[in-house]
Amino acid sequence: MATAAALATDGVTDTRQRLIDVAVDLFTRHSFAGTSLQMIADELGFTKAAIYHHFRTREQLLDAVVEPILERLRVIIGEAEELRGVHARADHMLTGFAALAVENRVVAVLAADPAVSEMLRSRRVWDELIDRQMALLADVEGGPAGMVKAAVVLAGISGASGPNFAGIERADLHRYLVETGRRALGLRAPRSSRTTASEES
Amino acid sequence: MATAAALATDGVTDTRQRLIDVAVDLFTRHSFAGTSLQMIADELGFTKAAIYHHFRTREQLLDAVVEPILERLRVIIGEAEELRGVHARADHMLTGFAALAVENRVVAVLAADPAVSEMLRSRRVWDELIDRQMALLADVEGGPAGMVKAAVVLAGISGASGPNFAGIERADLHRYLVETGRRALGLRAPRSSRTTASEES
Repeated sequence: MATAAALATDGVTDTRQRLIDVAVDLFTRHSFAGTSLQMIADELGFTKAAIYHHFRTREQLLDAVVEPILERLRVIIGEAEELRGVHARADHMLTGFAALAVENRVVAVLAADPAVSEMLRSRRVWDELIDRQMALLADVEGGPAGMVKAAVVLAGISGASGPNFAGIERADLHRYLVETGRRALGLRAPRSSRTTASEES
Repeated sequence: MATAAALATDGVTDTRQRLIDVAVDLFTRHSFAGTSLQMIADELGFTKAAIYHHFRTREQLLDAVVEPILERLRVIIGEAEELRGVHARADHMLTGFAALAVENRVVAVLAADPAVSEMLRSRRVWDELIDRQMALLADVEGGPAGMVKAAVVLAGISGASGPNFAGIERADLHRYLVETGRRALGLRAPRSSRTTASEES
């Protein structure tokens, strides 16, 4: 058993990261609501006191899991919004979101969890990001049809990049997701090197 | 407070259905893992004993929620498999699944919940249904690309028919979902009256 005192030395960052990694794993297997701090403690052989040293609540831990993903999302959205043309903007959003989902498979679980979205939606900054992300995709067609299409593509990419598809190579999975998203949204594959580069990242 | 004795009379079917309806509502808002039998009891002003009269565990209640949906899914899959041609089969599966998701918005929540899919996947009959459903859509393209496309379409339709889109008319939502699915899978809208009828149902 690691004690809070032992963790409070120079291993503090590593311990924090291990807690986050185990939380991602348990959220992916049992959903957010189905994962307790006690389960995370048990998985690591920690006491609950050792966890409290880093995270007081499960919600704080969720924040730590979600924050870097949101930060990347914010960058992708900002880049997309600066491009000229509805199609180029949608394409950048699509390829960026697919890369994010493939690299962070917990997105599949968290994006679809009503307990998680309720919590995140209650924060203005997250709510605004989701709206901007939706708008970038929905503007290709406009109206409610465009909104539904955007929702299908985002939910579909999240869902299909989940733990069930762990057997497919990341680069292949990303390419298939982007192809499917483009067809669903009615986008043509751009020939610019920018998009090719972001697909390979 | 209703007592178990009071419920055991001719109101027994109604009470069972009310329990299921409240469960659907709470699963939709808080996820399956985030909903306890106690919460369901509180919502209805029942004692927990009254609920035990109908469902011993939350899992039994989930079964009661899921069973009629699975039964409809089984019918749609069976109908699709009897059609001639990969495209006709995929199109019937697509339109049928979209109708199911639009009419049972809890599908959006349950389909994406790892706690739920773990439980359902452990039953052979459900696992086999999912595989047949995936195959009907994946066969349009074949290989891993076809599988990913099928997964995007199924997860996308589930996700986009969830509680967030409660404001769109069901018939419109169904039409947009089917259009998006057809484009994603590379299906042309068929001209036969069969599909038109099922889209309007």
